[in-house]
Amino acid sequence: MIRTIGVDPGSRYTGYGIVEGDGFRLKYIHHGTVKLPPARPLSERLQIIFEQIKASILEYSPQFMAVEEVFFAKNVKSALSLGQARGAVILAGVSSGLSIHEYSALRIKQSVAGYGRAAKEQVAGMVQRLLSIEGEIEPNAADALAVAVCHISTHSSNLRWKIPGGS
Amino acid sequence: MIRTIGVDPGSRYTGYGIVEGDGFRLKYIHHGTVKLPPARPLSERLQIIFEQIKASILEYSPQFMAVEEVFFAKNVKSALSLGQARGAVILAGVSSGLSIHEYSALRIKQSVAGYGRAAKEQVAGMVQRLLSIEGEIEPNAADALAVAVCHISTHSSNLRWKIPGGS
Repeated sequence: MIRTIGVDPGSRYTGYGIVEGDGFRLKYIHHGTVKLPPARPLSERLQIIFEQIKASILEYSPQFMAVEEVFFAKNVKSALSLGQARGAVILAGVSSGLSIHEYSALRIKQSVAGYGRAAKEQVAGMVQRLLSIEGEIEPNAADALAVAVCHISTHSSNLRWKIPGGS
Repeated sequence: MIRTIGVDPGSRYTGYGIVEGDGFRLKYIHHGTVKLPPARPLSERLQIIFEQIKASILEYSPQFMAVEEVFFAKNVKSALSLGQARGAVILAGVSSGLSIHEYSALRIKQSVAGYGRAAKEQVAGMVQRLLSIEGEIEPNAADALAVAVCHISTHSSNLRWKIPGGS
């Protein structure tokens, strides 16, 4: 069983979700959203993301962090903001000793919904069913849980291929 | 006298420069460039920036960090990379207890070269003269020293206005 924190960074909301599994079973552990006060200075906002992700890692002890790869953004300004939040998230993981893994949106959708072009709502719905979570999940937290599930399934099948005689 | 670390973050080269002063005098302390190995994973590159900036802060004990404000980038991809590096730099400052200040390119050029539209080379030349540095300075480190000088002159004149009876 491996435990992974998936994170979906954003300049306003950063979702995170912790999932445990081995490729056959998935177990939901926790999810949440870091909400940033918009009127505060950048340095303070980055520190909030960094500290809160570090606190979740300390509390739930995942061994891996999974984050979606990003190549696109609405514009240069939002790419800069997103990059800063993303930097804070990744540093929270590295400085806690986690191994960091990035997955494309296509790969995440494939591994969760079985279809690379699945709509955002389909992915969220599948995450909820796979992990038996009741009630609404905030969209960033749903995306964070999806990338955690993607990492567990990818990592588990990699491990399976390495076992001698395994298939 | 206040001591400031100026930083010019980038996805390949991050320049930093430490300057001390009180608005009348400027004293050059140190400068350097963090060079990132391009082939390494993102998480490792961000960690190198974070650790090396923290190490310089620990060694030279500035009270302030100054960084150029950024609104533009070549494209979304470079804005994402720059944002990530910038996030790592700012977190290195915040987590070392420094107060972080951002200045526009216009403001930096005005305070160093006396002219908001000064060319990059003019700014570098003025930094070199103001701080009596001999030999070539790597461009990112020159920009980092410029933002440090800008912070010292801004902060000192703010302080001067606050002294009762001062002018």
